[in-house]
Amino acid sequence: MNSPLPAGSTIGILGGGQLGRMLSLAASRLGLLTHVFDPSTGSPASQVTQQVTNASYDDADALRKFGHSVDVVTYEFENIPTAALDILEGINTIYPDRKALFVSQDRFSEKTFLNDIGLQTAPFVKVENSKEASDAIALIGTPSILKTRRMGYDGKGQSKVKNAAEMLTAWGSMRGAPSILEGFIDFTKEISVIAARGPDGEVSCYDPGENVHRNGILHTTQVPATITASQRMDAILIAAKILNSLEYVGVMGVELFDTSKGFLVNEFAPRVHNSGHWTQNGCDICQFEQHIRAISGWPLGDGSRHSDVIMENLIGTDINRVPELSKSNTALHIYGKVDTRPGRKMGHFNTRT
Amino acid sequence: MNSPLPAGSTIGILGGGQLGRMLSLAASRLGLLTHVFDPSTGSPASQVTQQVTNASYDDADALRKFGHSVDVVTYEFENIPTAALDILEGINTIYPDRKALFVSQDRFSEKTFLNDIGLQTAPFVKVENSKEASDAIALIGTPSILKTRRMGYDGKGQSKVKNAAEMLTAWGSMRGAPSILEGFIDFTKEISVIAARGPDGEVSCYDPGENVHRNGILHTTQVPATITASQRMDAILIAAKILNSLEYVGVMGVELFDTSKGFLVNEFAPRVHNSGHWTQNGCDICQFEQHIRAISGWPLGDGSRHSDVIMENLIGTDINRVPELSKSNTALHIYGKVDTRPGRKMGHFNTRT
Repeated sequence: MNSPLPAGSTIGILGGGQLGRMLSLAASRLGLLTHVFDPSTGSPASQVTQQVTNASYDDADALRKFGHSVDVVTYEFENIPTAALDILEGINTIYPDRKALFVSQDRFSEKTFLNDIGLQTAPFVKVENSKEASDAIALIGTPSILKTRRMGYDGKGQSKVKNAAEMLTAWGSMRGAPSILEGFIDFTKEISVIAARGPDGEVSCYDPGENVHRNGILHTTQVPATITASQRMDAILIAAKILNSLEYVGVMGVELFDTSKGFLVNEFAPRVHNSGHWTQNGCDICQFEQHIRAISGWPLGDGSRHSDVIMENLIGTDINRVPELSKSNTALHIYGKVDTRPGRKMGHFNTRT
Repeated sequence: MNSPLPAGSTIGILGGGQLGRMLSLAASRLGLLTHVFDPSTGSPASQVTQQVTNASYDDADALRKFGHSVDVVTYEFENIPTAALDILEGINTIYPDRKALFVSQDRFSEKTFLNDIGLQTAPFVKVENSKEASDAIALIGTPSILKTRRMGYDGKGQSKVKNAAEMLTAWGSMRGAPSILEGFIDFTKEISVIAARGPDGEVSCYDPGENVHRNGILHTTQVPATITASQRMDAILIAAKILNSLEYVGVMGVELFDTSKGFLVNEFAPRVHNSGHWTQNGCDICQFEQHIRAISGWPLGDGSRHSDVIMENLIGTDINRVPELSKSNTALHIYGKVDTRPGRKMGHFNTRT
């Protein structure tokens, strides 16, 4: 892609969840269209997009038609089957590209990559059999956390390990799934940087946000984070280094632990990120528009923060708080999900502080 | 309507232009759906709404189906045929209601109403025949402006009159359309107040904006307007008086002339208004969401201004400025119109200043 996509161009989005929905709404602001690919009907994004394909990720014909119908392909979740990407790659540009996906889909590759470019992570070692499970605890010590290499999110596929017996149980619960054992990190806070990079190498980072989790799911993000000016700069430089090393195109969420040894990188997500939802009410150009701009070859927009914001997620029955929240000075963002389920992200709200 | 519409409710919008488009995008943020009624296919709003009816405003069947398919009816332009409203009124709630439409559709009714509630307007007299045309100029003097009572917008259906001969020509050009002659107002600036009122009588006004027109079309709106604090309060009280007098529900745009005798009301529009587009980047809750909240019986949102903003319209070939504008720190809002025509509103951009 050498020149910016003109108005009326179509962006293909793999995945029809709330991130796809908000990407589609942002694209509409810029006069761009979207085509959402999702196996299920009635997804949040399908309500606001211009075209929908409901098909399985192993439906090669549907993928081919989708790939030919759009001007660029992006995604709203990182666990897209490789075979689907193989098909699309031959047809159209995929942003962010395969390398970012490949590295971030696997915790072992991700942490190895991060260490290789000189960034700190928790100590880790791969665990693929019982022998490695016993060895791992000797190498990493306790407390530690056994995590599947793939498909984990919102605390799923993780077990805390306090001793050798627990390690055995934890490894058993993985049912043979390739895993890593991570040393437990004593951190004072988690912050995240939402960063964008365009095809020409331009990088723009939002102000770091400070995250609080509940039950393994993001609960609030607050900006500004309670960090020093030099920490703020460190955090932004770490994010920029990851983007540049991957020659990344699009928006990325980078999670950092603030420790006595400086920032450790927890993980990065090659997509718009829940901890960047505050940008919708804290900046002129939110992370969703920034991602659309980046993958469309437009110049990145103004990501400077005009307001302090706290973002809070509405999880499961939290959605019943909407009538009360609508009375307060807060900006609601509701995802259009019909079924309320425990742990399901139903919406969020941003409060300027 | 006694209780707020729940998530998943559908708002019917008469008119599929850019105002309908931005109303639909705002409704999506709140988890509400929209159904757009517009005679033409491919309208700006049809690209982002969940349901579209393409039918004429005299298609009673289509109107009935539309009316039954939604939870409340609103509109994005005020010149809706009366017969269409007659049908819809029997089926569903229309917000803002008929009274606001009736008054504002006709310049004579509008100005009479404004004077009746104690607000100042330009001097005016109705002109319906040649006799009234000659008499009018004696009553109002020159310079003055002959305007059709109905269907005028963006300077259309208006003629400046400097003397009796010009009055004759101007009246001839009206082809018998009922008109009014308005005295020319010597004003230093035009400001507008975007105001909202909910079904329970709650009123919220945005900060007044200062408007500059070019060729009869709004060019820029700047907030804050260059007025004193007491003028700001005057302007807001005028807008609130209009809303309360009409028991109005929804967002209204009120245009005021700043004159040596204080503010005169130029006109009001019973809908979201071009001069309120700045709220998208100056406030948490923009005029579009505020309108959706009001007509859905939700509490009004936080309309306080967090930033100074200049809004500029992209008219006709101005849309070709987008690639250049996308490089600057400005928020673009593009309407998805395929054909560029002179005088056509293609988009706008908001710059925080």
